[in-house]
Amino acid sequence: MNPLFYTYGDDAPIAAPATPLAECALAVIRTSGKNALSLAASVFSRPPALLEAPGNTVVHGWILDKTEKIDEVLVSVYRGPRSYTGEDSADISCHGGIAAVQGVMRALRRAGFRDSLPGEFTFRAFMNGKLDLTRAESVMELVSAKTDTARSRAVNRLRGSLEQEVRSIRDQLVQVLAGTEIFLDYAEDEFMETPGALDDEAAGRLPDRGLAEEALARLRVLARSYPMERLYHEGALVVIAGRPNAGKSSLFNLLLKEDRSIVTDIPGTTRDWIEGWIAIEGIPVRLVDTAGIREAEPGGDIEKLGMERSRALLKEADLILYVLDGSCRSDDDMQGFPDFLPEDPKRILPLRNKVDLCAPAAMREQKAGSFLGISAKTGWGIPELTSAIAAGLTLDRGGKEGTSPGIGTERQKGLIQGAIDSLEAALALADQGEPLDLIAPLLREGVHALGEITGEVSTADMLEVMFSRFCVGK
Amino acid sequence: MNPLFYTYGDDAPIAAPATPLAECALAVIRTSGKNALSLAASVFSRPPALLEAPGNTVVHGWILDKTEKIDEVLVSVYRGPRSYTGEDSADISCHGGIAAVQGVMRALRRAGFRDSLPGEFTFRAFMNGKLDLTRAESVMELVSAKTDTARSRAVNRLRGSLEQEVRSIRDQLVQVLAGTEIFLDYAEDEFMETPGALDDEAAGRLPDRGLAEEALARLRVLARSYPMERLYHEGALVVIAGRPNAGKSSLFNLLLKEDRSIVTDIPGTTRDWIEGWIAIEGIPVRLVDTAGIREAEPGGDIEKLGMERSRALLKEADLILYVLDGSCRSDDDMQGFPDFLPEDPKRILPLRNKVDLCAPAAMREQKAGSFLGISAKTGWGIPELTSAIAAGLTLDRGGKEGTSPGIGTERQKGLIQGAIDSLEAALALADQGEPLDLIAPLLREGVHALGEITGEVSTADMLEVMFSRFCVGK
Repeated sequence: MNPLFYTYGDDAPIAAPATPLAECALAVIRTSGKNALSLAASVFSRPPALLEAPGNTVVHGWILDKTEKIDEVLVSVYRGPRSYTGEDSADISCHGGIAAVQGVMRALRRAGFRDSLPGEFTFRAFMNGKLDLTRAESVMELVSAKTDTARSRAVNRLRGSLEQEVRSIRDQLVQVLAGTEIFLDYAEDEFMETPGALDDEAAGRLPDRGLAEEALARLRVLARSYPMERLYHEGALVVIAGRPNAGKSSLFNLLLKEDRSIVTDIPGTTRDWIEGWIAIEGIPVRLVDTAGIREAEPGGDIEKLGMERSRALLKEADLILYVLDGSCRSDDDMQGFPDFLPEDPKRILPLRNKVDLCAPAAMREQKAGSFLGISAKTGWGIPELTSAIAAGLTLDRGGKEGTSPGIGTERQKGLIQGAIDSLEAALALADQGEPLDLIAPLLREGVHALGEITGEVSTADMLEVMFSRFCVGK
Repeated sequence: MNPLFYTYGDDAPIAAPATPLAECALAVIRTSGKNALSLAASVFSRPPALLEAPGNTVVHGWILDKTEKIDEVLVSVYRGPRSYTGEDSADISCHGGIAAVQGVMRALRRAGFRDSLPGEFTFRAFMNGKLDLTRAESVMELVSAKTDTARSRAVNRLRGSLEQEVRSIRDQLVQVLAGTEIFLDYAEDEFMETPGALDDEAAGRLPDRGLAEEALARLRVLARSYPMERLYHEGALVVIAGRPNAGKSSLFNLLLKEDRSIVTDIPGTTRDWIEGWIAIEGIPVRLVDTAGIREAEPGGDIEKLGMERSRALLKEADLILYVLDGSCRSDDDMQGFPDFLPEDPKRILPLRNKVDLCAPAAMREQKAGSFLGISAKTGWGIPELTSAIAAGLTLDRGGKEGTSPGIGTERQKGLIQGAIDSLEAALALADQGEPLDLIAPLLREGVHALGEITGEVSTADMLEVMFSRFCVGK
């Protein structure tokens, strides 16, 4: 568990805006903790109405700071454990102005609330057993999802798909481990009189080996899901590069126009190049047009700077759309790729633009050759292009099955990999005929890693499962 | 009434995000209108729970699009007329991601909601008698309030202070008008037999003239409130200008550091100068440092551009902080202001910076002379400077009484001015001895203008008051 969380662990009354500080119709300020309702009532125009409100009801009134009316609000009252955090909570819905939110927060601080730490509401929800760690993490994934596919995959985890899969795999491993421990226990008790028997019996004989192998296979499926999940969540960098006048900017504008479904805005960032986010088959794509990089007379410093920036972008790119003039009037032909492109051909998607200028149409295919023929002017070939981009980005990232459980975070990935490593090592030892008392600790490591994923405390319940398989009275 | 509103007038089910599309903990999507609850239930995981929920309660579940779970939500159920709009409404609180909000909106559209027009929820609230037009307008003022003072003044109107004042003044005028109409009616009935009698009786004798004069005085108080209300709401432009090396940027940074309470961010804007918002005694101030305007070698084009932009800013500025080097080591003395400053001295606040370099301290006052002595380095004189800025900005804008009713919008200002004009014309005609039948239409115009401010339909209730003062049976 994240050590940061340990510093959180109290039930002090906390408050925080849950919506951005911006001009909008309304804002929500969330509160939770010990005495949250009585403290909220102390700055509310109708204290008894709030204090007597049943859980899951809404009370109308004003937030007061001393005697001044700060804002007209609706207060949603939740009584623990029937709340997000599991504690008593009041969500205050006020007018969406910055000054209104600041005014309400000021009143709440005077009432005795402290500002919440990042993630503290969800942490309390976890501590109070409202959700496990994979679902807690999915909440943050959901919030930062850029496309509907990313949302859908995060919701999948919010619904508990990963939690269930991890718990189920862990149950299998616990069973393998328990079998091993029982064997070791019996061995100690009953085989001690026959020296050497323990080694003979235990060597190379992992109880429930089939289960262990199944668990390993399932863990590998989970691990393989991560590159795709990360692609859908974090998106990919696609850079348009190519010869001057090949129509790079026209292609950029066309792709941006085709899809404007992603709303992103990182205030305060300025760049020398033009870029925008688009969604391609559910993948958030940060599309960069290197034509936008400032160029001056050859040899000038500014051009050099531009070239350096272009090279850095090309190096970082997940996929490069390399554009040549593909009109039949052009002799823009080439052998191989220029040396500033990466060596890995899978990262390059070569295009011939302006194929609409080829007549008759049959010429287009011929002119394009191994390149994909497109026309940024007429839109010809663009559906094929977007498919090719999606294919290029998902290549080497495993399958696309969106409904099966997948891993959402680096933390989960690290723990899954840890469990795989332990299990592979355990099976390798078993293959080499090593005794069970060397194998058991590796299994225990695997179980522990999986328990960390969901946030269970590993020792207590592992022991419980183990002993429940013992006969009564033993 | 705004003609735009007429195109709104239906009770169709509408939906809209009420919080910004941004990554945050939660988002609220508001719905209202005919069948809003049954339509919302049709895309909710627990339709009966939502349909049977009493008003002002919260239901937990999932929004579904066909069979897909879009997001886990809390739905606040309001049953008309106990709702913001007066109609049945459901506020859907979902996770704050962009994709989540878009997913929920998509499901709501499929269910039969249409996207709401701007202000349509508040329009419906007005149409359903939940608030008058001044309070409806204050909602938008509140949302865009930049400082606590601006919020407080908007809240004053939200509480109905302006509405009550306008209605009260209008009542006075209706009484004056009614007296006039009664007189004209009686005159027609009873004085017809004596030609000339009507003119003699009516001329120069405005019934309830004292009331009319009181109404006029109250209207003038309201009109005078507008410059201050606008200052607190929209803020002022304060530009720092002055000699090179006088410490303009140090002063800018100091003032910005003293107050960072205003959060504003206009994405996508780039400027050649440095600016920031600060609050000075509750006044939102856009502070611009002209030192940030790019300068190149003298005579170069860039410098010319910079000068032009500086001049434009200085022309637009509400107040200019004109900074000279005030250290005793400096001979930066001057007679009068340079010609690029405006002629109006009230728009210039002359400062001598770096007075901390004057020793002994007694020298500071002497060196500063008629200028305000400050030190951006030590903070010396800064409280006096902020007071002087506030005084400079509020000069010529009338009083500062924040608790008395004030006008919040240009629309209100226009109608108040219209009422003042009508009333002044009416009193002038009365002074000139003109007959009441020329004066009555002007009074009617005034009453009508005030009725428009609150959004009452003027004719019906004016007639009611008039006839209620008639004797029974007439």
